[in-house]
Amino acid sequence: MTQKRVFNFSAGPSTLPVPVLEKVASQMLNYKDSGMSVMEMSHRSSSYLEIFNETKDLLKKVMNIPDNYKILFIQGGATQQFSTIPLNLMKNGKADYIVTGAFSKKSAQEAAKFGDVHIAYNGSDNNFKHIPTQDELDIREGTSYVHICANNTIFGTEWKYVPDTKGAPIVADMSSNILSKPINVADYGMIYAGAQKNMGIAGCGIVIVREDLINEHKDNIPVLMEYNTIAENDSMYNTPPTFSIYVLGLVLKWIDEMGGLEVMQKKNEEKAKLLYDYLDTTDFYKTHSDKDNRSLMNVTFTCPNKDLDAQFVKESVIAGMTNLKGHRSVGGIRASIYNAMPLEGVQTLVDFMKKFEAENK
Amino acid sequence: MTQKRVFNFSAGPSTLPVPVLEKVASQMLNYKDSGMSVMEMSHRSSSYLEIFNETKDLLKKVMNIPDNYKILFIQGGATQQFSTIPLNLMKNGKADYIVTGAFSKKSAQEAAKFGDVHIAYNGSDNNFKHIPTQDELDIREGTSYVHICANNTIFGTEWKYVPDTKGAPIVADMSSNILSKPINVADYGMIYAGAQKNMGIAGCGIVIVREDLINEHKDNIPVLMEYNTIAENDSMYNTPPTFSIYVLGLVLKWIDEMGGLEVMQKKNEEKAKLLYDYLDTTDFYKTHSDKDNRSLMNVTFTCPNKDLDAQFVKESVIAGMTNLKGHRSVGGIRASIYNAMPLEGVQTLVDFMKKFEAENK
Repeated sequence: MTQKRVFNFSAGPSTLPVPVLEKVASQMLNYKDSGMSVMEMSHRSSSYLEIFNETKDLLKKVMNIPDNYKILFIQGGATQQFSTIPLNLMKNGKADYIVTGAFSKKSAQEAAKFGDVHIAYNGSDNNFKHIPTQDELDIREGTSYVHICANNTIFGTEWKYVPDTKGAPIVADMSSNILSKPINVADYGMIYAGAQKNMGIAGCGIVIVREDLINEHKDNIPVLMEYNTIAENDSMYNTPPTFSIYVLGLVLKWIDEMGGLEVMQKKNEEKAKLLYDYLDTTDFYKTHSDKDNRSLMNVTFTCPNKDLDAQFVKESVIAGMTNLKGHRSVGGIRASIYNAMPLEGVQTLVDFMKKFEAENK
Repeated sequence: MTQKRVFNFSAGPSTLPVPVLEKVASQMLNYKDSGMSVMEMSHRSSSYLEIFNETKDLLKKVMNIPDNYKILFIQGGATQQFSTIPLNLMKNGKADYIVTGAFSKKSAQEAAKFGDVHIAYNGSDNNFKHIPTQDELDIREGTSYVHICANNTIFGTEWKYVPDTKGAPIVADMSSNILSKPINVADYGMIYAGAQKNMGIAGCGIVIVREDLINEHKDNIPVLMEYNTIAENDSMYNTPPTFSIYVLGLVLKWIDEMGGLEVMQKKNEEKAKLLYDYLDTTDFYKTHSDKDNRSLMNVTFTCPNKDLDAQFVKESVIAGMTNLKGHRSVGGIRASIYNAMPLEGVQTLVDFMKKFEAENK
């Protein structure tokens, strides 16, 4: 199959592996001789349950999730979890939030509707260039949980260590770096992510939560926000986003067949190194994030002025790339280089950057 | 393209128009020369916004939605609305619910978490065979709204009139009959539906709500449950279920090109008549619902005994049909014959029913 494809650097929804898209297209009218599309399958049918269970098993295998964690498929993206987390996990009415970007800020603001939120670190003063060191964290004794955002899509920063939280479980939003590298799930009380970056389609997300944190039933909160109910019904209290879960399964199969998260990490480090190494040799482009917490997924930088930023974006489209415009809160350029972005795409970008620098410096 | 297809009578997720699936497959790797799949598009990109706005405009056109109604794209299906509705619309702390099936019952139970719910009619005594007449309704004066379920998927009953609610706005769950016939949107304060029956993929839904009902901002409820916030952000407070909205757009285009909801209704009446007319000539099969409120979408009936029910389902699979097993609360057979089920599918079913009756009576 030879169809025109561009290098899509979108921050999310974002580029997907071509073999996954090809598989989806080929199974669209007749999935494995079932005579129907996955879109058309009853979520209670045996053919669909096979897809569902295979996807859950693959996630468990690929992420090496311990047995005492529940895997939940959720809707409403990470944003819906911003509300669901405090409604379920704020056991004693208080929680600590480490604010390292726009989404952790939103998530702290949302939690404050439902209890006593303490900001254990606030990175807004330096426009979120920085991930705090352990010494910079002001975590309360006896807080219900500590919330972090593991990778900040807009600002291009990423946590490189697991903070000490005085015994409180860490709740981590991994929307933009899940499946990019191996992690030790047991370091976290809960991990959650929207699927539309490294996992598949917008409108589906996952929650991985230690079961002892959700064994209590909540009577007076919206039913689809009770982790206990979702877990007891194996994510089928109502119809789950069936097709998106199928695509997630295909993405996981692709990762697994490539060699798993160790291989993903190696490839992601290689791609990021190519970009950052070049950025470190030039004064033309300036990176946004501190050097020791640069994201492997979202690389943010600026040209010497706003006109050149705009020109860069415009010319990059002609060169076969798209969605390189930075978020308005940082400006400049953002290259999101998730798992599915091939090295060739990053090489194309670096070649273009060199040419653009030579022409405009 | 000749791929094996079965006649899929699933209650939802359910059969989709073949031209829609073919279009999705053909655009999977490269949507309209964009060089990417719709799945991969940033929801803020101009190519995606074109899809989004076209879908909204088509829904407005096909359903003839007045200008003072907002169209919202939501996640979490109808079930999430069971919570969202009372959180937003129970203006004076009380609401009336007409319970005609499993989902209206769930919806009333959920609303009772958040306020004073009065059951204006309860059809559980006769296992939900019946839709109440106006005389059977006990609606309170001054209630915030009256909730109905327009079509009861499990039991196969459907409202054939719009009840008088003493001036209170009607909130209608139309998950299983939306787009099946023209309706007068202005008769309702709010209409909502999950997409996975007549509209597309599970994981996406729509809300059509009169704007004066949602002009108040709610500060202390989960952000994705505030209609005001969703409307102000044109359903993009966070990433919407982009791909599912695209499929909904294709389904709407298919309906529009077929001639709109008048044509859908004619086809649906023709299909239902074929089945009900035959059911009325035989004593072998017994229909579940009262004759005057039979659903055009879900046809429920039983064989003389449970063994024959099971044998019917088994043999129907060999005859090229699937998902005919009734819900456990009714038993027997359920044939869901949504818009995308061709007349040929219903004819195949009726032919099979005649043969099965002749062989087993």
